[in-house]
Amino acid sequence: MSVLFAEICGGITSPKGFVAGSAFCGIKKGNKKKHDMALIYSREVSTVAAATFTTNKVKAAPVRVSVEHMRTPRVRAIVVNSGNANACTGLSGIEHAKRMAVATGEALGLKERQVLVCSTGRIGVEMPIKKMERTIKKLPKALQSDGSLKAAKAIMTSDTFAKEVAVELVIDDKTVRIGGIAKGAGMIDPNMATMLCFITTDAAIGKKELQHALSIAVEQSFNRITVDGDMSTNDTVIALANGLAGNKPLKASQANSHIFQNALNYVTLQLARMIVEDGEGVTKFVEVHVQGAATYNDARKAAEAVAKSTLVKCAWFGCDPNWGRIMDALGYCSIKLREEMVDIFYDGVIAVKNGMASKTPFSKLQDVVAKEKFTITIDMHLGSSEYIVYTTDLSTRYVELNMGE
Amino acid sequence: MSVLFAEICGGITSPKGFVAGSAFCGIKKGNKKKHDMALIYSREVSTVAAATFTTNKVKAAPVRVSVEHMRTPRVRAIVVNSGNANACTGLSGIEHAKRMAVATGEALGLKERQVLVCSTGRIGVEMPIKKMERTIKKLPKALQSDGSLKAAKAIMTSDTFAKEVAVELVIDDKTVRIGGIAKGAGMIDPNMATMLCFITTDAAIGKKELQHALSIAVEQSFNRITVDGDMSTNDTVIALANGLAGNKPLKASQANSHIFQNALNYVTLQLARMIVEDGEGVTKFVEVHVQGAATYNDARKAAEAVAKSTLVKCAWFGCDPNWGRIMDALGYCSIKLREEMVDIFYDGVIAVKNGMASKTPFSKLQDVVAKEKFTITIDMHLGSSEYIVYTTDLSTRYVELNMGE
Repeated sequence: MSVLFAEICGGITSPKGFVAGSAFCGIKKGNKKKHDMALIYSREVSTVAAATFTTNKVKAAPVRVSVEHMRTPRVRAIVVNSGNANACTGLSGIEHAKRMAVATGEALGLKERQVLVCSTGRIGVEMPIKKMERTIKKLPKALQSDGSLKAAKAIMTSDTFAKEVAVELVIDDKTVRIGGIAKGAGMIDPNMATMLCFITTDAAIGKKELQHALSIAVEQSFNRITVDGDMSTNDTVIALANGLAGNKPLKASQANSHIFQNALNYVTLQLARMIVEDGEGVTKFVEVHVQGAATYNDARKAAEAVAKSTLVKCAWFGCDPNWGRIMDALGYCSIKLREEMVDIFYDGVIAVKNGMASKTPFSKLQDVVAKEKFTITIDMHLGSSEYIVYTTDLSTRYVELNMGE
Repeated sequence: MSVLFAEICGGITSPKGFVAGSAFCGIKKGNKKKHDMALIYSREVSTVAAATFTTNKVKAAPVRVSVEHMRTPRVRAIVVNSGNANACTGLSGIEHAKRMAVATGEALGLKERQVLVCSTGRIGVEMPIKKMERTIKKLPKALQSDGSLKAAKAIMTSDTFAKEVAVELVIDDKTVRIGGIAKGAGMIDPNMATMLCFITTDAAIGKKELQHALSIAVEQSFNRITVDGDMSTNDTVIALANGLAGNKPLKASQANSHIFQNALNYVTLQLARMIVEDGEGVTKFVEVHVQGAATYNDARKAAEAVAKSTLVKCAWFGCDPNWGRIMDALGYCSIKLREEMVDIFYDGVIAVKNGMASKTPFSKLQDVVAKEKFTITIDMHLGSSEYIVYTTDLSTRYVELNMGE
């Protein structure tokens, strides 16, 4: 298939009409300089919004408030803070998340319900809300038409690099852009972290159509990454579409809709891959590709079991092509399996043939696992279902980073 | 309830009529001295046998062979090797496991089917079967009436201490003994390890009654421990009962049967705890006690999610009383949960009250987590179901030990 979009610079401020900015508040003690609040805003018109939130039953207050605000037909801004997750904070947490939306609304001349709220950082700590309200007042002045990188930096916690991507495509002879920023699953800071992702587009698209497209994109990207298997209380992906590109509104099942979907998939997958690559203490980026599974669900369970196995991940860290641990994980993940049918490949080199050691020299497998990126392909030979998970090794550095303050 | 049994010395050779011994074979390259084969034998009479095997679908050859041999009404010996798991070895693996039983039978004058076979060590490597057959011929001469510790040592892989326990109880005025040895879930050696446990008793008990009692004991002990969440291809628990104590055969629902069950539970729980304490790189032994859950299944899922969370375990290693990670794990484990009802205690000290930080000073919680053993109690306040899991921290040393050869 020909590529129908091109990657461009500019992140979330590349689509028409979106501005972003950041400011220093000092939410987390000891944070002397780093900007820790960000604002994303559609300056000219309101937007339709789509979102996916954590399925964790312990949901942070901003998640609960944003879920409510998503009922609004058109929103216009997202306010975000790092340094405090506002999770396990009870009724006062809900009040503080609302006050963030109220303060942002006042600063921009919007209703509270037109503002979505996100937080990332410590769990179980009360927000310094008054200080934050003062910072929010200053945020509109910080908004810039090239402010994407500043917002991407302000939402970072233990991330080591800012995560931005943008693409351009043509729909109805109109230039349409999609931009995104994200922060990763770093959890050292110090209680819990969060995957946050904000996507903007100037495409004209209905709320339902945007939600449908976002759900597909998230399923194929953020839902397929794992660093340590712990799901956060705050995970949020929000997409805003303001329609300024001037295309005819996208409808499902049109060719244009497929082009938009592909471009959106690319944006989310790139950001998801960056999150994995920037995982704490990560030294390897590994694609686990299961094929030939009896069912889609079996393919998913098998790929996730291998990608999350502590022992498999430790072996990768040690550059050890330890396929016995992969066979073991396949055996305990409750899927249809015939041991004597399983083949396993390391970057295409066969390691396991019919469930037993292949004749490939051990050193050849070691060469693959010594690389920073490689793919493990597992063929179950039981059907035609497949699934991919993007994962990492488990390093001593990961443990050190997660030992606490 | 009064204690109706007493702990004694002697392990698996303390019950009447059982002997054990070990020998050096050199199954694993580089192993110059350590005994790596063991034999357990009921010298005077045959025994009924009960067993539980790994539920991993990738089953080692000795597991498949022992499952078959368990159909025999009465068996008499267990032959075990360390250094090679005989897993993922195809048809020749099955043949080799059978040859171990045949050779043992010939050496002791038994039928092949009266011998159970166990292996632990590397996955995917062919057994040096001829060398092993030669060693098996010598094993009967090594049998001793106090050979339990030798057998316990011969089955060790990365274990740092031998695991033995025995108890004595009185049934029908007869002295009944139960002894056990086990090896732990060390997985560095180098592909995969195994939990193996062998229990002997001179109690008179039927095969079905012994299986029933063993299943209950395993469910409350070995099924409740976790070091890294990876289930092995070789896990095996076998109990042999030869009836030499002379009690009337135990029947279910008799008082004597309960006394025997309690003693057996104690033996398996002690061995299970030793396995956890000897887990690779372990610095903490943690009991996770969930109570007040809506259902038994919810209590189990909650306890297992907390006990297996990479982030929770890293925090314990760092002596960080990070209850946010526990709340997070409770949130993602698919149980009935009301965040605002959850209380969490560290050795009885309240850390979380109604889903939020308690007023307990942080330093007091730090004092608990600094200990080598502590208990996390989680009260869901939704019902009356409870569950306990015995687990460990996750240390940098664990990762180092599991990086490969």
